[in-house]
Parts: sequence; structure tokens; C-alpha cells
Amino acid sequence: MKNHRRGTGARRVLVIAAATAVAGSAVLLPSAAFAAPDDFGGAVRNSGDKTEMLRDSIVDAPAKNVILLIGDGMGDSEITSARNYQYGAGGMLPGIDALPLTGQYTTYSLYKDGESKGKPDYVPDSAATGTAWATGTKTYDNAISVDIDGAPQQTLLEIAKANGLKTGNISTAELQDATPAVQSAHVAARSCYGPDSTTCGADALDQGGLGSISEQIIGTRPDLSLGGGSASFDQVAKAGEYEGDTLLAQAESRGYQLPTTGAELAAVTVADQNEPVLGLFAPGNFPTRYAPTVATVGGADLAPTACTPNPERLSTDLSLKSLTEKGINLLDTTGSKGFFLQVEGASIDKQDHAANACGQIGEVIDLDEAVQSALAFAEKDGNTLVIVTADHAHTSQIVDSTPPTSLSTALLTADGTTMKISYGTAAAGGSQQHTGTQLRIAAYGPGAANVTGLTDQTDNFFTMSNALQLDRDTKALSADAALTLTGSTVKPGASVVASATGFAGDRQVAGMLADDALGTADVIDGGSSFDLTAPAEEGTYTVSVEGAQSGKVVTATLTVAADAPIVTPTPTPSVSAPADPGAGAGGSGSGGSGTSAGGGIDLATTGAAVIPVLTLGAGLLAVGAVLMMRRRRHQHGA
Amino acid sequence: MKNHRRGTGARRVLVIAAATAVAGSAVLLPSAAFAAPDDFGGAVRNSGDKTEMLRDSIVDAPAKNVILLIGDGMGDSEITSARNYQYGAGGMLPGIDALPLTGQYTTYSLYKDGESKGKPDYVPDSAATGTAWATGTKTYDNAISVDIDGAPQQTLLEIAKANGLKTGNISTAELQDATPAVQSAHVAARSCYGPDSTTCGADALDQGGLGSISEQIIGTRPDLSLGGGSASFDQVAKAGEYEGDTLLAQAESRGYQLPTTGAELAAVTVADQNEPVLGLFAPGNFPTRYAPTVATVGGADLAPTACTPNPERLSTDLSLKSLTEKGINLLDTTGSKGFFLQVEGASIDKQDHAANACGQIGEVIDLDEAVQSALAFAEKDGNTLVIVTADHAHTSQIVDSTPPTSLSTALLTADGTTMKISYGTAAAGGSQQHTGTQLRIAAYGPGAANVTGLTDQTDNFFTMSNALQLDRDTKALSADAALTLTGSTVKPGASVVASATGFAGDRQVAGMLADDALGTADVIDGGSSFDLTAPAEEGTYTVSVEGAQSGKVVTATLTVAADAPIVTPTPTPSVSAPADPGAGAGGSGSGGSGTSAGGGIDLATTGAAVIPVLTLGAGLLAVGAVLMMRRRRHQHGA
Repeated sequence: MKNHRRGTGARRVLVIAAATAVAGSAVLLPSAAFAAPDDFGGAVRNSGDKTEMLRDSIVDAPAKNVILLIGDGMGDSEITSARNYQYGAGGMLPGIDALPLTGQYTTYSLYKDGESKGKPDYVPDSAATGTAWATGTKTYDNAISVDIDGAPQQTLLEIAKANGLKTGNISTAELQDATPAVQSAHVAARSCYGPDSTTCGADALDQGGLGSISEQIIGTRPDLSLGGGSASFDQVAKAGEYEGDTLLAQAESRGYQLPTTGAELAAVTVADQNEPVLGLFAPGNFPTRYAPTVATVGGADLAPTACTPNPERLSTDLSLKSLTEKGINLLDTTGSKGFFLQVEGASIDKQDHAANACGQIGEVIDLDEAVQSALAFAEKDGNTLVIVTADHAHTSQIVDSTPPTSLSTALLTADGTTMKISYGTAAAGGSQQHTGTQLRIAAYGPGAANVTGLTDQTDNFFTMSNALQLDRDTKALSADAALTLTGSTVKPGASVVASATGFAGDRQVAGMLADDALGTADVIDGGSSFDLTAPAEEGTYTVSVEGAQSGKVVTATLTVAADAPIVTPTPTPSVSAPADPGAGAGGSGSGGSGTSAGGGIDLATTGAAVIPVLTLGAGLLAVGAVLMMRRRRHQHGA
Repeated sequence: MKNHRRGTGARRVLVIAAATAVAGSAVLLPSAAFAAPDDFGGAVRNSGDKTEMLRDSIVDAPAKNVILLIGDGMGDSEITSARNYQYGAGGMLPGIDALPLTGQYTTYSLYKDGESKGKPDYVPDSAATGTAWATGTKTYDNAISVDIDGAPQQTLLEIAKANGLKTGNISTAELQDATPAVQSAHVAARSCYGPDSTTCGADALDQGGLGSISEQIIGTRPDLSLGGGSASFDQVAKAGEYEGDTLLAQAESRGYQLPTTGAELAAVTVADQNEPVLGLFAPGNFPTRYAPTVATVGGADLAPTACTPNPERLSTDLSLKSLTEKGINLLDTTGSKGFFLQVEGASIDKQDHAANACGQIGEVIDLDEAVQSALAFAEKDGNTLVIVTADHAHTSQIVDSTPPTSLSTALLTADGTTMKISYGTAAAGGSQQHTGTQLRIAAYGPGAANVTGLTDQTDNFFTMSNALQLDRDTKALSADAALTLTGSTVKPGASVVASATGFAGDRQVAGMLADDALGTADVIDGGSSFDLTAPAEEGTYTVSVEGAQSGKVVTATLTVAADAPIVTPTPTPSVSAPADPGAGAGGSGSGGSGTSAGGGIDLATTGAAVIPVLTLGAGLLAVGAVLMMRRRRHQHGA
């Protein structure tokens, strides 16, 4: 009798499965084969009683891996409009909708100043919200992993790394954008992208700060960072060891692989602390999947249109799905302790701001594809927690009739009918606002139960770090650090390698020979080393290495004597050797760098070159230390 | 160091619990006693790992009782703004936020006509959405439990009743409003409130339909109906047995208790099929908790104001919480098979339409109090499924800055700061629109697992009916119906009672003596009876009773003989006697009613007087049947 059957085969299968499953106790159900959405039971999504399935989905932590996928600005409205458009109202986003455990979470931020200090700001930005899950600390809009007093808060990525996990950060935005930045940087103002940014203030390297977001990304040294934002890396450091070099050159010097195309990324076979990957595939944000639509006052009264492919879109091997799959492949290595990976679909937010319905919808679809990949891995792996959520809600609303004063657009959906999207929080040409509603959070895997019911965004930090059983006292992770020398009694002027181990809680260490600085060096898998030249004068000297983040100091005694035996230094086995054996002269050990000026190391230091270079020449020359081997590793996969 | 601690003690307790619980593995957590929202972990809501708690919350069906609480128009934005206002952003709605299992569901409706017939309408109304969970069938906007072809679909309340459960329906709206109406009526146009409605069309009694919503409520005969809407019950029936009487008088005639005040309701001690309760406490909708606010273009730039109590509000013994508690008390009776109760907070929607922030917020708070009561009962009972959700989303958005073209309001919240609410889908004076986003659905108790993940609104029908293990083949529930007479061989003109039993699947039955109609009667606990007078002529006659909903016909043979013994009829024990022993003469058995015209009984009949009265006089007079005892039961508790 029904002659208005649904469209797609995929949908049909879903209907049949659902209708069949409930048929056992539903004698009035129509024949499943003919179920249409208007039939009794024809629109259901459950395929039978979910109780056992839900029980099965509750798996105790620990998880070995966590994949956090963020749809920036992806409120329930954005999810729904994307589903309606791409799969129909009765369809399913194969990734986002597949997660078994869901809840809601609150996203408010806090005011920073004045009488309202510490009080809720009901509509947060991406900086505060990202900081919430990245650090477990609520903060003010604009803050990148600093609290409302400006104090850096360690991030989940930093903690995971300190615990020996591999780490990754992927976004369709510039990597300096708030959501990726919160895992790798600590600045008071989110727009402090690079050395040229005018908003860095005290965070700028030349102001004694930790450096811009781009500079801190290099120092945090995730195993993998993929996204846009190469423009900021083309800027030139204004201070520190790399003053005068572009950040890209700095990254190369410090061992990064720097793929810039899909082919180059495909050629990358390893992403680790020796050879971290910093893939920058666009100067700014990635172009969206769909070409933009323009919302106008009365626009939803126009004939509905379908979204069209965006000719500017990057090649599909750089889609969020492709990047996610590549990232998982690189991070999921045999024998590793696991990984933490954050993936962001960034332009849901950006196109919602722009009242661009197709733009935001395409980004949801892109994210959904990445979620599918993450779930496929997690299902196979069996030991991975996948969380999908957003940072804050946004303006777009699905409306029944064209709003008379707000911007709107009419889209022709997969259902073959019209969906009207309204943008009512800013006038034409303005930026549509974030909104303050609670959001969906969904999860799969060990520890996923913690997203159910009502939580706060800061809970997500604990959900993830607890699932990974991370020791959040990262300073303690450097407690057993040690220092060995290739020779404890050497001739004047002899070459000595000071090898520090056990600095897991640090990302950089600073070395000293007596009162002279040996510079800072990146910590690689807990270790770092300094090549130094024994003083010309006989005597007993203290070599010390201090963790830049932990403050842990380890020392060794170096005796210089003319009658000492000749020792040929080799790197200690506990320190990973550079992968490129052909690196420049003296390049043993980790990336020691040649800045000086001891003392006063900021415990929250994440930048590589945070120590003023005032005494560079004198300090280094005095002790004859071998400067770090800049560009000693060649780019892989490029 | 922090000098901006949070306000309320309740919030402090929450913070402490949460911080304490995570402290085991979080050595960096601040001292719990000093946790503020800006502290590390200070804003979390989880009190430790939820995994075991979630496991414990998953309880297999069956449930004995189901309480469904609907916040009309209560999207996540409305929940969040109410929480922010009343308890602060970090606070908790003690009812709504306490449910352990949550998910999202889709709410789209379907187009009824033309080329779009059966295709999704992305922004539904309360009629289509209510029909979805009440019947498991998607339908068009405006439809009250009929499908897109106009065919009545049996409702959960009707099915529960047919399965022997007690039933209740509570709303702060008129009981004719869509959300309550979908459980008790079937009309093509939701505005068909009473006999005077001009939109009833073929549904009107005088057009051979099932009657207006008000008339069908009487016929569906839930044990308990509490709400507003007395105005429609003051209208006069235009056809049927009760033609010329007000609906209120009809309800009284048919055994209803009719409390109109809190005191009268308090005096009600029983709500069952013999004495159902129809409590009408307002002519229309209930006044809201808070006095209205007026949103204007630019309004959120005004000084923020707190909501003020609405002087028009009903007494607290008629709050939604009080009605819910009273309803549960009346429905939860010893020895019963359980109950289904629907509770609606109706004016979240209505005040959202009116861009009235305080109005909608107060209604969420009222609903939340009702949820608290439902959960308290369910927790104690241990066998009750509580579901809290909404029918559709709505316009209100929490925004950061005052939107330049949309209506907005600034409220001073419990946090002591400003929350800006925007209404951007209609111009000033217009009705703000529903929106199409997916919604939160949350549950507690046996079968609650079925709300998790992504479901559709129609799933909720199956979630509830499966949890209650209802047999949805209600026609079959009348399959074993039987008919007995107080005498099978009687003298001419003798009084005989024909007692029908086993009509659980019916709400009314129609009786016949030979070819003459005995009228229709309400089925009470499966039984009904007809008082009849044996024909004057000797002979053998067939007495038959037909289920109005099932079509089931049962017969008995009546032999009229002058030499038959004298029999004094008494009601059969299987039929419940009226509770009032002093009821009018001849009032044994259930409410038989004196309309005639056999045949053609609509299987979906729910109205009491659906059979045209064309042959009333002739039919009844010919067989000498005793007409139903109108007003034979007195109102209790008045």
C-alpha cells in the first residue's frame, strides 16, 4: 500500500535489521522487507534489545591507546544537519553514530579578570575548551593550556609522552589553532602563532617566555603532528639558539621529518622521538570538502541546492581520514607502550562562524570518516579508547520555515527534500557565535563508561589519562635520572660525552660543566647527551644536567689530569642514536644545543631555546663544548 | 591563593567528592577542600571511575512500571540554560542530570501529502513527535496518533491498559495539547480539542468520527489524567449518547472523579477503571513558575535580571512535582501489574516560542523536580524504568554577545554572572521555531540501556513497551472474551444482566439483543455488562457483545418462556462493582450506554459514543433495555 519507500540500500538494510530484531515481541510489526519510515516500527534504529550489547561495550580500563576526535563546534545540531544532508534523517553517520556509550558534557569557561574572575563564562572559545580536556583545568577564553592566572598546565599529550607513550596531533586547521595547540603549547593568547605574532607578549622567546605556539610545538616534540599552518613555521626565530632561522629550519635541525605533500607523507615509515613527523600541508587551514554556500536573510526561501565539491580541497591522501589512518599506522608500533592521538575536524566551527552550511557539513562528514578509521583500528586492536566529541556548540539550527531576520540557506538533502539551516547570532558579514549548550560526548573501548551521563569537559582529561593509567606526576618520572660520562678521568681537551638517562618527565635538559652552560638538548626517550671538551686546566669539575620541566639535577664528576688515559667517547647505549649514521661530525647523542646561562630554568619550559643567550660565546668557548649538530639529521620521506 | 571560590554548599560537596575520588591517581590534584572551578580537576563531575556504576545501572527488563517524563521543547540548550540559571554552570539539575544512561535520538517527522509524502520533515511538531513514542509510528506534523494516511495507531497508554497495567497522563498543558493527547486520542488535526473545535473534520462525533480529543480522553479512560484544559470539557457534545451534555458531565456520568483543586486532588484515594481521575486544574495551560521576561533586539545588552516568581502560578500542591508524586501514589497499588505514567513539562516549548527565557527556565526546573520524584520512587521500587527526554528541540541559544538582529535577554544567574539567551528564528511578536537537532534521552532502571547511543524517537515506544513486556497485539487480548447471562431461560419482560468478561483488548463494547442494539459500555478491567429486559414474546434470542477495538464478538442464548423460573439478576463477580454502593437504580455492572445501530464498529474506536444514534429510540424501546445509568457514580474527593 505504501508507495513512498526510502532511497538508499544502506538505509534499507538498517530498517530491516531493526524491524526483524523487534519482531519477536512485536506481532503488529509490518513485514520487515517492506518497512518504510512511516510504517509502525519502520524508523527505529535499535536492532533489538541493547542491554547485552551495552554490557559488552563496557570495558574496564586500562586502555593501551586513546584516540580523541574533536569536531570543532560540532554540536548536536551540526551532527544532525550533516546526517540529514549526507545520509538522510533516518540514516546514520557511520562513525559518529556508531559509538555505543554517549553522554553530555558542559563546556563553560571562566572569566580571567576583575570581579568575575573564576566565574563561569557560559559561552567558551576553543582555547578554553581545549585546555579543559587537555589539562583538566578550566580556564579563560583565549588561554592555551594556562590557567586563569596564566600558569602553564601540563597537557595530556605531554603527560602521555612523559609516560613513554607515543603521541600525535592531527588537525584540518593550522596546528597553531587552539584545538591542536592546547596539547603542545602554553600561551596566554591563542593568536601567538609564531615569532612574528604581535600578541605573544611575555610568551615570546625574546621576552623570556616559552615562545610562540609554533616554537613550542617543536619543543614539545610529539611523535606526529599533521595539519596546516606552514606559514607560521616560515617565520624566523627572534631569540634563542635558532635566532635568525626559520622555524622550519629549526625543526629540521632538531630531527624532524617534514613532509609537505601526500606523497611525502606516504613515504614516512617511522614517527618517533628520534625522527618526529611535522607534516604541514597548507599555509593556513585546510580547504573544506564542499564549496561554500552563502546564507542570506531569506535565503532558505530560495530553491534548495546540493553541496558541490570544493575544487580547492587537498588531495584525498590528505583527507582527515587519510591523515588519521597514517597517524595510527605510525603510532601503533610493535613493543610500544601505546599512544595518545588527537584528531580535529576544525572547520565545522570555522564554517559555522561563516554561516556556510555546506562547509560545515562537509567537515562533519570528513570527521566522521576519520572516526570510522579510528573505530576500525580500535575494534581490531581491542585495547583502544576512542572518544568523539566537540569543544563547544555553535550557531547553526535546522528550522522549519525561513527566519525573517536571520541568515539562512536551503539545502537539498539525500532524502530528496529541503533542509533549512539558520544562523541567527550575527548579522550578515559578522561572525556567527559559539553557543553554550551542553554537548554530546561518545566513546568506545576501555574506560568509555566515564563519558556517560553528565560530565564536564575537564572530566575528559581524567577519563583519558586514567584510562591510560598515566602518572600525572611527571616530575617524579625524572626522579631516577642519572648521568654518565664516557670517561671520568680524562686528559685536558679530551672529548667527553655526558649522557643523561631517565629524564622521562622532561622534554628538554640543560647541561652545565662547572659554571659553564652546555646548552639545552631535546630529551629523546628519556635520554639526552652533551658532547663536551675537557677543560685545559687540570682539576675536578662537576658536570650537571637539569630537567627543564622537572627541575631534576643529575651530576657526574670529571677529573682532568695530564696523565689520564686516552678515551674515545661513544654514546651510551641507553641513549638512542640518531637514525642517520651519516650525520655531521660530533653528532652523537641527542640534540644538545648551545645556549648558556645557567639557573632559573622554568619548570614549565617547553620551548627548546628558553635560556637567554647573553653569555653564549664566553660560556661555550670556555669549556670547549661541541655545539649541537644543527641539521645533522636529514629529512626522511621528503 | 585563590580568592574566587564557588558559592553554594551543594556545589562544594560535589567538587570535594569528585576531587577526592580522582585523587588516588592524581598526585597533582589540589587539596579537595580547596577545589575551585579553576583548579586542576576542580570542575569535574565524575566521582571516580564510572565503569562499575554504569555496569550496575544496566538492569535487564522487564520493568513493572514505566514513567516517561517529557520536557516539551527541552533541547540541550534549554537544559543547560536552566542549569546555569538555577544551579550555576558547574551545578547539577538534581533530577535530569542524575540519570545514568543517556543517548541521543532523532525527532524528524514525515510529510503527509504530495510528492514529499513519507519524506522527512526535519523540524517536527509536538504532535508528530508524541505520536512517534506513543505509537512507534512516524507521522506528519499535526497528527495525534494517526499515521500519515490518517489511520489510528494504538498508543502505549492504550496498550498498557489492555495489558492490565494502570495508566496515567500528567501535563502542565491542557490535556488536549499534543503531548498528552497522543496517548489518549487519535485525530488528524491536533487542534480538535472539543466538540466546538472547527478543525475536527471527519473526526467529529457528528461526522461519524471518534470524537474530539477531549471526548476520546474520556473514552480511553486512563486511570489518571491530570493537567489543564477544563475549558474544552465545558463544551457540549454535538452527537452521540451524551449529545447536549457537557463533556465534564459526561465524564462524571461515566464514573470519573473530577478534582479541580489541590485539596480535592489530595482527597482522592483511588484511581482505577471504576473511578478514574480526571483532574483539570486550569481552563487552559498552567501558569509558569517564573514571571515572563521579554526578549528584544539588543535586549541582552540590558542589565541582567533574575527571574521572579509568577504570582499566577498554581499552588504548590498542583506543581508538576506534586502531581507526579500524587500520580505515582495512586498508580502504584498493591497487587497491580504495574503502571505506565507519562508526565509532561509543557511550557518549556510554549515559552521558548514566546522568547520568554524565565518562563522556559522555570518549566525546566519544574520538570526537574518531577524527575526527582520519579527517580526517588524508582530507586525505592527497584522495578521502574524512568525515561527523561524531550519531543523536539527549540530556538533558545546561550550566546556570548548580544546578537544584533535576534531577540535576546540577559539573566543574572546563580553564579552571580550574566547569561545571554538569544531567540533567532522569528521576529519580535512572532513564534520562535522548533529546531531539528537530535535530542538527549536519558534513562534509569530495567531496560534503560535501550536509550543509549543513537536511537530514533520511535525506538522509545519499543524501549518502553518491551520493558513492560506488553503484548502489542491487543486484539488478541480479547480473544478469550466470554458472555454470561444471569438467566438463560427467563420469563417475558424479566430483567437480565449480560456480563461480558475477558475484553481486555477493548475500551468499549457494544451489546445487541437479537437485532436490537443495547448501546455501548465502557470496559472496566476487561469486563462490562448490560442490563436488559427480556422480550415480551416467547422464543430464543441471541445476546451478543462486540469489542469496539478488537471486533471480538461473544454471544449467549436467551430463551424467553412464560414458565421460566423467576431470576433476580446480580452482577457477575468477574465484573467490578461500582465503588459507590449508593449509585442510582439499575446501576449494576459497567457503564452501558444506550446508543444503537449495530455493525461497522471501527476497530480503532476509542470514543464512548461513536455509533450514530439514528435508530436509538426504535432499537432500545423494542428490546426494553435499561439505559445506562448516567451520573450513577458520584465524584470522589470533591
